[in-house]
Amino acid sequence: MIKVGIVGGTGYTGIELIRLLYAHPQVEITAITSRSEVGKSLSELVPSFFGLSDLKFQEPTLEVLAQCELIFFATPNGTAMKIAPQLLDAGKRVVDLAADFRIKDVATWEHWYGETHACPELVTEAVYGLPELNRAAIKNARLIANPGCYPTSVMLGLLPLLEKQLVDPTRLIADTKSGVSGAGRGANVGVLHAEVSENFKAYGIAGHRHLPEISAILNTLLPVQQVQLTFVPHLLPINRGIHATLYAFANTDTDDLTALYRERYAHEAFVSVLDAGMHPETRAVRATNHCVISVNRVSKQQIVVLSVIDNLVKGAAGQAIQNMNIMYGLSESLGIDAIGLLP
Amino acid sequence: MIKVGIVGGTGYTGIELIRLLYAHPQVEITAITSRSEVGKSLSELVPSFFGLSDLKFQEPTLEVLAQCELIFFATPNGTAMKIAPQLLDAGKRVVDLAADFRIKDVATWEHWYGETHACPELVTEAVYGLPELNRAAIKNARLIANPGCYPTSVMLGLLPLLEKQLVDPTRLIADTKSGVSGAGRGANVGVLHAEVSENFKAYGIAGHRHLPEISAILNTLLPVQQVQLTFVPHLLPINRGIHATLYAFANTDTDDLTALYRERYAHEAFVSVLDAGMHPETRAVRATNHCVISVNRVSKQQIVVLSVIDNLVKGAAGQAIQNMNIMYGLSESLGIDAIGLLP
Amino acid sequence: MIKVGIVGGTGYTGIELIRLLYAHPQVEITAITSRSEVGKSLSELVPSFFGLSDLKFQEPTLEVLAQCELIFFATPNGTAMKIAPQLLDAGKRVVDLAADFRIKDVATWEHWYGETHACPELVTEAVYGLPELNRAAIKNARLIANPGCYPTSVMLGLLPLLEKQLVDPTRLIADTKSGVSGAGRGANVGVLHAEVSENFKAYGIAGHRHLPEISAILNTLLPVQQVQLTFVPHLLPINRGIHATLYAFANTDTDDLTALYRERYAHEAFVSVLDAGMHPETRAVRATNHCVISVNRVSKQQIVVLSVIDNLVKGAAGQAIQNMNIMYGLSESLGIDAIGLLP
Amino acid sequence: MIKVGIVGGTGYTGIELIRLLYAHPQVEITAITSRSEVGKSLSELVPSFFGLSDLKFQEPTLEVLAQCELIFFATPNGTAMKIAPQLLDAGKRVVDLAADFRIKDVATWEHWYGETHACPELVTEAVYGLPELNRAAIKNARLIANPGCYPTSVMLGLLPLLEKQLVDPTRLIADTKSGVSGAGRGANVGVLHAEVSENFKAYGIAGHRHLPEISAILNTLLPVQQVQLTFVPHLLPINRGIHATLYAFANTDTDDLTALYRERYAHEAFVSVLDAGMHPETRAVRATNHCVISVNRVSKQQIVVLSVIDNLVKGAAGQAIQNMNIMYGLSESLGIDAIGLLP
Repeated sequence: MIKVGIVGGTGYTGIELIRLLYAHPQVEITAITSRSEVGKSLSELVPSFFGLSDLKFQEPTLEVLAQCELIFFATPNGTAMKIAPQLLDAGKRVVDLAADFRIKDVATWEHWYGETHACPELVTEAVYGLPELNRAAIKNARLIANPGCYPTSVMLGLLPLLEKQLVDPTRLIADTKSGVSGAGRGANVGVLHAEVSENFKAYGIAGHRHLPEISAILNTLLPVQQVQLTFVPHLLPINRGIHATLYAFANTDTDDLTALYRERYAHEAFVSVLDAGMHPETRAVRATNHCVISVNRVSKQQIVVLSVIDNLVKGAAGQAIQNMNIMYGLSESLGIDAIGLLP
Repeated sequence: MIKVGIVGGTGYTGIELIRLLYAHPQVEITAITSRSEVGKSLSELVPSFFGLSDLKFQEPTLEVLAQCELIFFATPNGTAMKIAPQLLDAGKRVVDLAADFRIKDVATWEHWYGETHACPELVTEAVYGLPELNRAAIKNARLIANPGCYPTSVMLGLLPLLEKQLVDPTRLIADTKSGVSGAGRGANVGVLHAEVSENFKAYGIAGHRHLPEISAILNTLLPVQQVQLTFVPHLLPINRGIHATLYAFANTDTDDLTALYRERYAHEAFVSVLDAGMHPETRAVRATNHCVISVNRVSKQQIVVLSVIDNLVKGAAGQAIQNMNIMYGLSESLGIDAIGLLP
Repeated sequence: MIKVGIVGGTGYTGIELIRLLYAHPQVEITAITSRSEVGKSLSELVPSFFGLSDLKFQEPTLEVLAQCELIFFATPNGTAMKIAPQLLDAGKRVVDLAADFRIKDVATWEHWYGETHACPELVTEAVYGLPELNRAAIKNARLIANPGCYPTSVMLGLLPLLEKQLVDPTRLIADTKSGVSGAGRGANVGVLHAEVSENFKAYGIAGHRHLPEISAILNTLLPVQQVQLTFVPHLLPINRGIHATLYAFANTDTDDLTALYRERYAHEAFVSVLDAGMHPETRAVRATNHCVISVNRVSKQQIVVLSVIDNLVKGAAGQAIQNMNIMYGLSESLGIDAIGLLP
Repeated sequence: MIKVGIVGGTGYTGIELIRLLYAHPQVEITAITSRSEVGKSLSELVPSFFGLSDLKFQEPTLEVLAQCELIFFATPNGTAMKIAPQLLDAGKRVVDLAADFRIKDVATWEHWYGETHACPELVTEAVYGLPELNRAAIKNARLIANPGCYPTSVMLGLLPLLEKQLVDPTRLIADTKSGVSGAGRGANVGVLHAEVSENFKAYGIAGHRHLPEISAILNTLLPVQQVQLTFVPHLLPINRGIHATLYAFANTDTDDLTALYRERYAHEAFVSVLDAGMHPETRAVRATNHCVISVNRVSKQQIVVLSVIDNLVKGAAGQAIQNMNIMYGLSESLGIDAIGLLP
């Protein structure tokens, strides 16, 4: 059994991690922490655990975390970087579900996240935890930067096209839509039920932190860095799910893009490619670690990729566990092989 | 491995059965049938199965079902009674998730369901599959009448009070609210998104088929049949979940009703009793087989019980599998021990 | 034109008041105030006013309010009572949409609202603004206590039965369900979209402030004070609407309760009585000032009344304007005669 | 008073027309028709009309419609073209809210709508009823082709850019999202609450009828027909509202696009232009005839326009009434000047 700790277990990502790890056959949840809820029981904050678990939230001290082998950070940005160095020094492994280690260029990170990075040296070491791209490196990593939710949906949708250089990398567009759990469990007027339901809008049109993350990774796929991506996120009145609608202009006449995608993802347990003309739905991946994609050539010049994930699973907690499974040599889908709920 | 068949696998209850049985470690789904969808693949009708299963819908013939040991009927009322006799004769076991075998008084059944019963003799044999009430009989049953969703939530909420005769059985009130999946996957205007969302209403005020089912069972708990229950169902703009708010007038001064409930359900894996003053939420049991209850004495005379279940799980497919587990001597929670999704 | 001021215009009730008064043909909105948003424009906080209005939020000072004839308080409880005396002294009229003047018994008020009342003498003078009960007194009032949303739906549903003493007043039950806008626009985790949607629960089972308000008014209808009401509110995952399901035990064999209700409300523009067996829906009254009721004798002893309103209109802002129309001798439905949106 | 008839009054568009026309101060609804609901009262099918209206649905015969001056068709595609010629011959005016007269190229129409056009000669005469583009022609029209909902949101969003030729017309992208009422009130599984809520998906990726309509109109703005538009619609789990996210590649360095849009729409009562960087929300226009737009230059090459309407109002019934107001020389906003509901 892997002894794991979860720092920041009271947000939606943390709760989802606990839910999945609780049922994972090779994991023992040794500690859950929360600065604000010390002493409270899990079932008090998450009613679905009533009667099932005696876990209580503790202070995220080194002593508490020393009992664990692997620590997940489901904390706000800027938290993990302050403790990770000590944990790694103590021989622990760390998976950060926030953004602290996602962007290799520290100046870019500091620009978008508005603070000085606490351990730039670890940024270099950290492995970007997208298994479909970096499986080998993940296997041996001490420190995983778990990808953002939007980036996961966009990158899995565009990887095959960029790796083969079939599209113009200077005119990429990602029109993305996310369920509201992506905004967290904080008490903000903007995510009240009466503000979100029966409503739809874009946000972050002036710039979103996931844009540099996506661009940087996509650039690594090309011989020359030249990605120009327009990224427009929207807020969906649903709880879980991301739908990325991706527009690219073709460089090629290649016809069977679906075959290309199926070949690229042939050995991936968590990526399914629908026939062209079919429409992935967020509910098909609700509460699962799957990404479902269709790739469509809608005109001679225009390729449209549709890509869906559950932002809390493949976009966060599930992918973190997938990374853990890889790091520990377990079956990659252990504990994260649920089938989507319908309805 | 138990070889099971699912007759009527295209409604929400059937889909939920398939989802749960697919992941059940002791079950092999041998056949799924649907008269209207013969030849179609499961993943075509239920997008969450894409890439996971090759199951195809077949005709519900005796030949097809002969390959199974246990057959679940997730069909409209009046279907199972036409085939069940032959299946039982052939040595199969049957769990009917519809209403054909729920009401022992055949005349009452025929009144409410508007047709002649096809096999009244089996009604007598059938065991009403509420494990918390009938576990011993279920163990040896060939034919299970799986309880209705509303009845499950109401009966689990009232059982302890009636067994101990602590309330006036002639003035019981069940104000119940159900998510829309309870109305099925048929194409009816009344359950369109634009009709149901941002709306709330009662229905069936003039009489609902679950009332005689509940009354009959509750009467079996009393020395004399005298239950008078007012039952008012309402349609909730959510997909899953039933909330029963139960009003009873006390016959007693007994103070600690919570202790009584906890004692009654001490050995039940799927019933949790909250402290008085707490409020069970439907999301706490979403996609789980749990029933969560609180019992509250709000005045000297008035007891209010709050009881929640997932109508598709403890109210249908999950309870059916719980019954199967009991029939086959398996751990009662095998395959149905999921934790509620939040959000 | 009546010059009106709105104190506390940034909550959902305040916004609804502004929306309705803005379109009222005999009203000029002279001032809107908000301590927290001074200087901000209405359209900044309420996007639907963009391009339509230049109103800005001001400090709620006496100088600002002196320009108005009538001041509406859409403020938290305990606010209006601190300014109302001075406004009345200055010859203004006041309609309080909060609870400060709703309960005649000041000790009861202080118990439930947890503070000392600032002007008990005005409580006596204040008229409870339910036009269907108090129209004559409203006409000449200086100070209106606008009823709570739950009380409006419950009282209109029970008035005819209690006035005629057709039911046992010691065994009344109100099972009520409210849309989430009733909880206000404050930033609380409990009303986040991801907490409320796809969920349903009761709240306040241990006691709710609307219970003493309802009981006190219902008692005024009886020769002797003896109302015993059980009141259980629930949170609906919709934005607008209250549905009250009311249970009473009959004292009578009177058959045609529907006729009785229609006679009682024959001259009421805002109360409609459906045939028995029909189900009022919250959407039928969405964004309207209507209350729709059906009264059903479901057994010899049991009467069930279904009653719906829009909590922000007939339950708050619309009723406040109805009261204003009466006070100023206008047509009672002026400016509040909208038809329900569907969908 | 203008005597109007509404053919096909039982769908969401028809209901919305009736709601708006019922309150219009210069209109008398003379007839509402529905083949399937002849004899039923309006309030039976639309609960919000209970107690307000005695209108009954009639057969859509020439005799019935002869009593009207203006007939609105809120019917399925292919219906109006069969009766419109006779109505025009009889001196009536016609506004078709379906697609029969929207596309000037009859062969294109027949390709997309799959039938032979019944009166191609009237297609030439019909005026495309987008007031912001065709006001003068609408004034004198006998026959109005009311624009589609998606086309309205897309065209208003792109008009200023194309009229000034500031963008590459061969690389336009419209990523559009519509509330479910756009799919009508028919009983289809795909629009059940349990299918639509908590879900999001694209549809029509292989081609949608609104694409040729939009392209044809946009081409009329250019010196040479060269529009290449990629159009991807998505289904939103809300009842009302369209959000169009429009991507165009700039031909120019023009900086202040917002000023350009404001100038273009300076005299339009129903188009508002937000500052760049702001996000129009569908709720801001809920139940109103407004279109709210922001235009954003997100990089040197990329312009993103955000445009929202209520699909049932500016996208259908409200725009039809706006056209009627123009045809009859009334104030253009008469009867359609409501403010958006929040929440």
